[in-house]
Amino acid sequence: MDFDIIRAGRAVLHVTDLEKSRAFYEALGFIETASDSGQIFFRGLEEHNHHSLVLKKKKTPAVEVISYKVRSEQDLDHLADFYNKQGTEVKWMEAGTQEAVGRTVRIQDISGLPVEYYGEMDPAERLLQKYHYHKGAKVQRIDHFNCMVPDVEKAYDHYIHQLGFACSEYTEGEEKKIWAAWLHRKPSVHDVAYMNGLGPRLHHIGFWLKDPMNLIDACDVLASMGYGSAIERGPGRHGLSNALFLYLRDPDGHRIELYNGDYLTSDPDFKPIRWDLDDPMRQTFWGHQAPDSWFDEASEVLDVHSNQKTALKNPTLKKRKPTFVT
Amino acid sequence: MDFDIIRAGRAVLHVTDLEKSRAFYEALGFIETASDSGQIFFRGLEEHNHHSLVLKKKKTPAVEVISYKVRSEQDLDHLADFYNKQGTEVKWMEAGTQEAVGRTVRIQDISGLPVEYYGEMDPAERLLQKYHYHKGAKVQRIDHFNCMVPDVEKAYDHYIHQLGFACSEYTEGEEKKIWAAWLHRKPSVHDVAYMNGLGPRLHHIGFWLKDPMNLIDACDVLASMGYGSAIERGPGRHGLSNALFLYLRDPDGHRIELYNGDYLTSDPDFKPIRWDLDDPMRQTFWGHQAPDSWFDEASEVLDVHSNQKTALKNPTLKKRKPTFVT
Amino acid sequence: MDFDIIRAGRAVLHVTDLEKSRAFYEALGFIETASDSGQIFFRGLEEHNHHSLVLKKKKTPAVEVISYKVRSEQDLDHLADFYNKQGTEVKWMEAGTQEAVGRTVRIQDISGLPVEYYGEMDPAERLLQKYHYHKGAKVQRIDHFNCMVPDVEKAYDHYIHQLGFACSEYTEGEEKKIWAAWLHRKPSVHDVAYMNGLGPRLHHIGFWLKDPMNLIDACDVLASMGYGSAIERGPGRHGLSNALFLYLRDPDGHRIELYNGDYLTSDPDFKPIRWDLDDPMRQTFWGHQAPDSWFDEASEVLDVHSNQKTALKNPTLKKRKPTFVT
Amino acid sequence: MDFDIIRAGRAVLHVTDLEKSRAFYEALGFIETASDSGQIFFRGLEEHNHHSLVLKKKKTPAVEVISYKVRSEQDLDHLADFYNKQGTEVKWMEAGTQEAVGRTVRIQDISGLPVEYYGEMDPAERLLQKYHYHKGAKVQRIDHFNCMVPDVEKAYDHYIHQLGFACSEYTEGEEKKIWAAWLHRKPSVHDVAYMNGLGPRLHHIGFWLKDPMNLIDACDVLASMGYGSAIERGPGRHGLSNALFLYLRDPDGHRIELYNGDYLTSDPDFKPIRWDLDDPMRQTFWGHQAPDSWFDEASEVLDVHSNQKTALKNPTLKKRKPTFVT
Repeated sequence: MDFDIIRAGRAVLHVTDLEKSRAFYEALGFIETASDSGQIFFRGLEEHNHHSLVLKKKKTPAVEVISYKVRSEQDLDHLADFYNKQGTEVKWMEAGTQEAVGRTVRIQDISGLPVEYYGEMDPAERLLQKYHYHKGAKVQRIDHFNCMVPDVEKAYDHYIHQLGFACSEYTEGEEKKIWAAWLHRKPSVHDVAYMNGLGPRLHHIGFWLKDPMNLIDACDVLASMGYGSAIERGPGRHGLSNALFLYLRDPDGHRIELYNGDYLTSDPDFKPIRWDLDDPMRQTFWGHQAPDSWFDEASEVLDVHSNQKTALKNPTLKKRKPTFVT
Repeated sequence: MDFDIIRAGRAVLHVTDLEKSRAFYEALGFIETASDSGQIFFRGLEEHNHHSLVLKKKKTPAVEVISYKVRSEQDLDHLADFYNKQGTEVKWMEAGTQEAVGRTVRIQDISGLPVEYYGEMDPAERLLQKYHYHKGAKVQRIDHFNCMVPDVEKAYDHYIHQLGFACSEYTEGEEKKIWAAWLHRKPSVHDVAYMNGLGPRLHHIGFWLKDPMNLIDACDVLASMGYGSAIERGPGRHGLSNALFLYLRDPDGHRIELYNGDYLTSDPDFKPIRWDLDDPMRQTFWGHQAPDSWFDEASEVLDVHSNQKTALKNPTLKKRKPTFVT
Repeated sequence: MDFDIIRAGRAVLHVTDLEKSRAFYEALGFIETASDSGQIFFRGLEEHNHHSLVLKKKKTPAVEVISYKVRSEQDLDHLADFYNKQGTEVKWMEAGTQEAVGRTVRIQDISGLPVEYYGEMDPAERLLQKYHYHKGAKVQRIDHFNCMVPDVEKAYDHYIHQLGFACSEYTEGEEKKIWAAWLHRKPSVHDVAYMNGLGPRLHHIGFWLKDPMNLIDACDVLASMGYGSAIERGPGRHGLSNALFLYLRDPDGHRIELYNGDYLTSDPDFKPIRWDLDDPMRQTFWGHQAPDSWFDEASEVLDVHSNQKTALKNPTLKKRKPTFVT
Repeated sequence: MDFDIIRAGRAVLHVTDLEKSRAFYEALGFIETASDSGQIFFRGLEEHNHHSLVLKKKKTPAVEVISYKVRSEQDLDHLADFYNKQGTEVKWMEAGTQEAVGRTVRIQDISGLPVEYYGEMDPAERLLQKYHYHKGAKVQRIDHFNCMVPDVEKAYDHYIHQLGFACSEYTEGEEKKIWAAWLHRKPSVHDVAYMNGLGPRLHHIGFWLKDPMNLIDACDVLASMGYGSAIERGPGRHGLSNALFLYLRDPDGHRIELYNGDYLTSDPDFKPIRWDLDDPMRQTFWGHQAPDSWFDEASEVLDVHSNQKTALKNPTLKKRKPTFVT
């Protein structure tokens, strides 16, 4: 490969009420870098770049794009070549088109997800040591995208063999097929995960917290501000990834995961960890059941060329959730 | 009143497999003070007395008695007089009858619960600063009993007006009747709580933890030891009492609450806090639903005179759980 | 005794720059209940009364008074009688003289400290569950006063035998004399402590925090706001009291302790814990040395009758600090 | 560069009493993978390789070698070539020579430090989710080496330009010279740091903890086991690196840092952070002073060829510690 994808970088979400969304994400502790009447740019406390989350005011909630940061501007050209050779149509967004980022490459990926690559983003003040600005969940940085796709193995093969991702953990279901997979470029458990399901849809965006108490604090603060109903699942620990998690639904139903507790994956001899779909400790190490909404609901995504919602396909593997939670 | 009840002191539980129970309570971090083939005495890390939990091997799980500590031996005589005057039969357990405690007074209380008073208990080494012995949930001390009774107002009136308890918080249901009440002698939120329900039954025994991280650690340790299915509810925060909680079921189904986060109630001008039964933040401040088992299941209790299980009565108030969790 | 002292209630401090002090205490997370050009009233998040700390703008920093809450207005009359019989001059502050409190009794106590008793204080909204207002150290409530006095045994005898305090822990120095003592009315380790030293002076006011992470957060927030130099000692753990502590100096040098981790002391059979002055784990369980300023510096106190600073006396016991920190 | 250094991998320390050392490192929560009469192999809870710390029983305490993991066996050949070309004598340790690692390359590096590279190490069970084995400080994994060297700029240039390290943060002292530098291969703040001082010596080995409470717990457990005097500095927060730290001295005086709170450094546009040597928040964000021992004492290192201690040189920059702590 002649390109180097660094990490999950940002997501662009469509929301229907910018003020409602601002209030919610500020409650979580996101820092607003910039905004105008049509969009807000948020970043976490550790982030030295302009944003990791863009909210755009639109009539319908949707995912415009999930974006990966690449090492250099040249990597964008190489990625465009790569996709062109594959017959995947490339959409260039020239510098200046989008606030605070340089030129980007957008494509509809192998699962039908709207994916973007960028090399440059404006800097922003890192607030890691401005502790008096830390509040809510004290969100540190973007960590990963979790996507529901009809064919996990296809996505897995593509991202590993053609884009250079590594697998940290995976779930096997029927007939030894991969039911879900956690893939990374930065040396954490994942930059992206794929789960078997009706898709392509974005299941959630994961943001990293610096310690477990921040999850407890997040629950307390959200509840006391009236966002109790936004707490969909958790706090709990995933067996898979070892993450302490909290799942929230923003005012438009987009799902956010607050996340702490995974591990370093940079060793070349690290062996991917296999879980059985029905292992009761996989989903929730402590044995709790996830609500049905967590398995059924996810954000629909747009076509990068038509800006229309992409059609949904039923999953290849029949089982939509582990047996123990049925 | 010429007696002074100090606090919830200990519970005597019947269990069917002493080894299974020992393993479970040791996993939680209880310290075994003494044991023989028929019983085990456990204490918390902060406790300077012999035990706060007695497990006796019996054929059927049950609650033999819940015990309050009183200021002095004389208080026992005064309590016996008090109950005799009321026409409540008193059972004296003379010193030497029970290991590590002096003489006790046992009665079937106004709700039909088996209640005991004791003034003296052998000392034991306090392990508060032996941090290398702290493990599991690092259980510090017994905090309270929670009882399911058919007539909460009757229990409430009796314990407040005749036994000197104070109310910290309460829940009102139908027709402004008290659906549940939290009563204390020591200046915490409670030594005993009564909830409307099929009873008399012991819903749970609450043990106090020193900090919120101990709840997270408890979940992790229990799960990694194979006790994941013992976690019934939580971690979460109660609106009522503000406690961070975790509910566990021991091998016989007795329910244990691990508990942190309540407050000081010693002020004479502290006003009891009223909650509406259907307030979604009362049960769980973060908005989670409790499982049905939490409302339906509880430990049956024995008659202190016959040693047989007491008959159960249906509750006075019809509603058995808040509407929002139906 | 025909009076019932409930707990340490409030302190009235003189400060030289109200704005500087406001900024400091707000950084710690205190809630301002009321203020005018001459004074500010602060309370903690758990407190249901108007204030636990009063700052008055004056030319010289000093302690005007430390105040205990009593059970009822009658207790004030009984206390006045008690002091009158002893030949201690009583100063009544009638209701309306001081904002938000009823009438009070002020005396110069046996150690020369300005002490006040009050029975009534206006209520204030308790913010325990308004988590989005919690910040800084998230100060919960006043816990205790620590006083440096020339004759600890005299104070000890008086407060225990004549005022009804109980001793939880104490330090013995030369010739088995009490070098320091921790005394309580509420069932915590202390409402007041006395240490051998040049006095009478107020060494610090202790405020209770709800969990250990709040101390870490307090350090981070104070440092990032430029208050790093206010951190005098800690975080550390006291062997004596088991408290996790942080000592701060406010803009006038008044010392504040942030405090978490002590234990319940309501049992009548709890035996006071004895420490040797030179036990290296007494002062700091983890073995750290306290800075000299912590032993040498304290706030001077006023005479309740003359409003002048009281004269200082050298301590009875020669040793001013443990040998291991010399 | 035709080699890829992955991360700090292990240290081999000489200790004088294997049992004393075992007790100390077990108290910290290290897991013993293997041992014999002459050596012990320890690993952290997250580690999937055989060890990250080797203790060898010898007459004199010393550092035998600090070791980096490389991507593959070929990298070892390329590194040997690289050093040979430079005129640095290479010592091959063939597979089988050392327990649990493949062949290694040892050299005396540009600062005179004994450095080793290895590609293969036996696997070991990862205990990340065996929470009931976690105790003490719950040490997760090796993080970094901190070395005191006479010429920081020389080391800095070599490791960055010839070995491919990146700089995350650095300290400037006199005449804009680099006084200290934090360099990384894995995307954390560092795998190795160099500080100006009498050297070459190993100042400390840093081990990563998963959350801040583990530092508090470590202090409590160490103190209650009698290791209070092993706590040299902390807990505190470094301004530089943002790490929450605790410095310990093992029974032979080797210094261990327990460490939590740094950040992700994988972005190519991350700009190294510059600190002034005398910035009071650099060393300790909370303003505490470090003890003199922390600046003066460090472990001496061996020559990889002669196995003798290397000669020490005075530092190039005169200032041995920041002015504010003098």
